[in-house]
Amino acid sequence: MINYKTVLQGSYYTAIDENQVGHQANSLVCINDEGTIARIVLAGDDDYQVIVNDAKQQGTLVSLSDDQVLLPGFIDLHVHAPQWPNSGLALDRPLYEWLEEYTFPLEAKFKEAKYAHLVYDNLVETLLANGTTTALYFGSVDNTGNLELVKSCLAHQKRGFVGKVVMDNPEQTPAYYRDESATAALNETENFIHEVATLNENQTIPVTPVITPRFLPSCTDDVLAGLGKLAAKYDLPIQSHCSESDWENGYALTTHGKRDATVLDEFGLLTDKSVMAHGTLLNGEDIQRFKDRGVGIAHCPISNVYFGNAVLPAKKLLSENVKVGMGTDISGGYDPSVYQNIRQAIMSSRLLNDGVDSEITPDLRGKHDAAITAKNAFYMATVGGAKSLNLATGQIKEGYIADLQIVHAKYPTFGQQVPEDTFEKLMYQTTVSEIDHVMTQGVFVK
Amino acid sequence: MINYKTVLQGSYYTAIDENQVGHQANSLVCINDEGTIARIVLAGDDDYQVIVNDAKQQGTLVSLSDDQVLLPGFIDLHVHAPQWPNSGLALDRPLYEWLEEYTFPLEAKFKEAKYAHLVYDNLVETLLANGTTTALYFGSVDNTGNLELVKSCLAHQKRGFVGKVVMDNPEQTPAYYRDESATAALNETENFIHEVATLNENQTIPVTPVITPRFLPSCTDDVLAGLGKLAAKYDLPIQSHCSESDWENGYALTTHGKRDATVLDEFGLLTDKSVMAHGTLLNGEDIQRFKDRGVGIAHCPISNVYFGNAVLPAKKLLSENVKVGMGTDISGGYDPSVYQNIRQAIMSSRLLNDGVDSEITPDLRGKHDAAITAKNAFYMATVGGAKSLNLATGQIKEGYIADLQIVHAKYPTFGQQVPEDTFEKLMYQTTVSEIDHVMTQGVFVK
Ligand SMILES: [Zn+2]
Ligand SMILES: [Zn+2]
Repeated sequence: MINYKTVLQGSYYTAIDENQVGHQANSLVCINDEGTIARIVLAGDDDYQVIVNDAKQQGTLVSLSDDQVLLPGFIDLHVHAPQWPNSGLALDRPLYEWLEEYTFPLEAKFKEAKYAHLVYDNLVETLLANGTTTALYFGSVDNTGNLELVKSCLAHQKRGFVGKVVMDNPEQTPAYYRDESATAALNETENFIHEVATLNENQTIPVTPVITPRFLPSCTDDVLAGLGKLAAKYDLPIQSHCSESDWENGYALTTHGKRDATVLDEFGLLTDKSVMAHGTLLNGEDIQRFKDRGVGIAHCPISNVYFGNAVLPAKKLLSENVKVGMGTDISGGYDPSVYQNIRQAIMSSRLLNDGVDSEITPDLRGKHDAAITAKNAFYMATVGGAKSLNLATGQIKEGYIADLQIVHAKYPTFGQQVPEDTFEKLMYQTTVSEIDHVMTQGVFVK
Repeated sequence: MINYKTVLQGSYYTAIDENQVGHQANSLVCINDEGTIARIVLAGDDDYQVIVNDAKQQGTLVSLSDDQVLLPGFIDLHVHAPQWPNSGLALDRPLYEWLEEYTFPLEAKFKEAKYAHLVYDNLVETLLANGTTTALYFGSVDNTGNLELVKSCLAHQKRGFVGKVVMDNPEQTPAYYRDESATAALNETENFIHEVATLNENQTIPVTPVITPRFLPSCTDDVLAGLGKLAAKYDLPIQSHCSESDWENGYALTTHGKRDATVLDEFGLLTDKSVMAHGTLLNGEDIQRFKDRGVGIAHCPISNVYFGNAVLPAKKLLSENVKVGMGTDISGGYDPSVYQNIRQAIMSSRLLNDGVDSEITPDLRGKHDAAITAKNAFYMATVGGAKSLNLATGQIKEGYIADLQIVHAKYPTFGQQVPEDTFEKLMYQTTVSEIDHVMTQGVFVK
C-alpha cells in the first residue's frame, strides 16, 4: 500500500501545448509528502479502485463534486505589490502623471513595516484566493517593505519571487523616492538577497529574490552593469519592463541610440531567468534576441490597454516558441485575477486580428492570424508562466509540483455539456467566488 | 410628518451628463409608495434630522454602511434571453457557424414552457443580482417561451422589455427554426402583444412588448413592412441589429442596394422608440439618421470583440448626442454583468484611440480622441439606457423611478480615499458579490 498525502479524485484540465488542453474525467491525482504529483491514475486504470479504497481508509481522499474541476494554479508574472491600494485608480491618466501623482508617492509609503504588512498580507491572500499560486513581484525601493512581502508569501505558503526595485537615475525619479546612488542600490539588493535567505530557513516554499531594475529610464548605466553582475554571481532571476510603451521604447533609442532590449542585454540582464514585462513594442530583432536568450515575456493585457499603446502579438510569439506568461500588472491593470487577464488577452488579440477602426476597409483593418483562443491563454497562464520562471509547475503531470486550484462553474448548464464547453465557460466566467480551494505544494491554502 | 415608504441614507453617485458624475455623501433618498424618488435631502439641509427621526420612528429608514454606496440600477439594452445557457461558449467560431451550430438549435428549444421557465427564471434573477434593473430582451420565435420570460420578469419585479423574435426568410434561417410565413410572424407578434397585456393586469411593473425583427438578413420585406405598421399601431418600442459586422453591413448593400439603416428606416423601424444593437459599422449618414429619428444604440463591447469586426466610436456618438446605452448581448457576450461591459467599453475605446498594431507608427496607429472614461461608460449604463427606452430611471433624482443598487467596494482602501477614486474602483472592480441590494420601483428585490 502506498501512502499518499492527498489523493484528489475528479476531472481535470491541463495544457498539453500552446494549442491543446488535455482533459481527464474522474481521475486520481496522487500527491506525496513533498507536495509533488507522484502519480496520476486514470478512470480505466487497473489499480484505480485499490488506490481509492486505500486513500479512503487513510483519510487522504478528497473527492471533487460533479460540478468541480481541478486546474493547475495560475502564475502571475507581473505584480507591483506596493501598488495594490491603487488598483482601479487613475487609469485615464498618462503614464507620466500616473507615475508621479499616484504610483511613486504610494510606493514610497512602504518604508513603514506596519503599512507594508497590512497591504501585502491582503494582496497575497487575494492572489491566492484568485487561484494564483505563484507570483513574480516588484517590491519597492525600500527593503523594509520588501521583507514584509517575503514574510507574507512565506506565511501564506505562496510561491513568491520578490525583487527590491532599483531606480537611481535622478533625472527620471523623484527625490523622495529613489536609490541614493548606484552603489547604495547594489548594496541594498545584495542585502535583500541575504535577508531573504535568512527568512527562507526551514520554510517549505522558499521565496526567490529577483534582480529588479525598474526600467531603463529609471536606472543609470552603472547600476544596470552592477545588477547584471549580481544576477550572475547569485544565479538569480531578473525582472524589468521592456518596450512597454511608445515613450519607454523611444527612451532607449534617444538616450542610448539602441533598442531597449539591446541595452538590457549588453548589461547581462537578458538571460534564461529573465522575465520582461509587456514587450508590446518589441520588434523582430528584439523577439529573436528574447528567443536566443530564453527570456520570458509577462503579457499583461489589461495594463497594456492603458499604458501599452498597442496589443502584444501573443499568437505570433507563441507560434515562434518565445516564452510568454500572463501578468496582472497591479496596478497598471485593475484586476488581481489572472482569469480576467486571460479574457482580456483573448479579446485584445481579437481586436488586433480584426482591427478597431470601422472607417478602414475590412481587408486593411486587421492583422491576419492574430487571434488567440481560450486554450492559448490558459497555456500562457500556466505553462508559459512556469517556463518563464523555470518551475516544474503549471501542469497536472507526474513529477510536477502540486500547485492546484479547484473551481466550479459559475452558472447552471441547464443540461449536458461536453468537456470542451465546460472549459470555455470556466475561462470566461470564473471569478474569485467560484474558486473553492487552492493548493500550493500539496497543501490547501484556501 | 410625511410618510415615505423607504428613506435610504448614504452616499450616492449619479450621472449628470455624459462627462460628469455627481456625488453626495450622507444624503437621504426618500421614496414614496409609488416607488418614485419623491425627495432628495442633502446632508446640510434644514429638515435632514427631522426626516431621519421620522423615518426611524416609522421603521422606514435604511442606512447604508460606510463602505456602501447607492447607484442607479443599470439598464441592459441587449440580451438574447434564450441564449443564456450558451454564455461563454463557442466564441471563437465565425458568426455563421455560431448561429447555425450553437444559437439556433438552442433558441428552438424554447417552445417547451418548462425548459424556458427554468432558464429564464435563472437569467432574470442573475441580471437583477448583477445590478441590472431594466433589460431589453430578444425572446425566441415561439411565444410559449416568450410568455415564460414575461412571467419571470413579473415574478421578480424586473423592468422588462420583451420581443418575440421574427425571422421568416427561408434563405437565411433553418427550417426547424423560423416563422412559417410573414403573415404567421405578424399574427404571432400581435398575439404576443395581447397576451402580455393580459399578464400585465394588476402588476406593479408591467412588461413592455417589443417589435423584434431579428435582423435584416433573417426577414422578408413583407414582414419588415408589417412590423413597422404594428409598431405604429400599438406605439411600441422596436429592437433589431444594425450594421453589426462586415457581413451584416454588407448584406443590406448586396440585397437591397442600400445601407442597413436606410432599409430599416424605410420600413418604419427607426423611431424614437427604437434600439439598434451594436452599430459598430454605422457610417456618418447612418449616425445622422439615428440622431434625426431618436434611435438608441445598444453598445455591446464584449460581443463586438467577437462578432463586431470593429470598435463602436462611443466617444464620438456621445459627443454628437446620439442615444447610446450598454448591452451585454448574452450570449454573443459571455458576461451578464453590465459592470464587465463598462470595463470593456473603456478598454475597447482605448484600443481604438491608441491603435493595436505595433508595426504601425504611433502617429498612424490610433484614432484621435476616441477613448472614453469610466464616467462616460457609467452614463451609458444608466442615463443612456434610460433615454433609449424613454424611461424616467437611470438617475438618482427627484421624480425618477427608484430603480437602484447598493454596492460596496471589493477591496480595502488602506486609508482615506476621495469620492472620485471610490467611483473608479467601483466601476473597475464590482462583481455580483459586491452588489448587496437591488431595488426596482422602490421595492428591494435582492
Ligand atoms: Zn510594471
Ligand atoms: Zn444580438
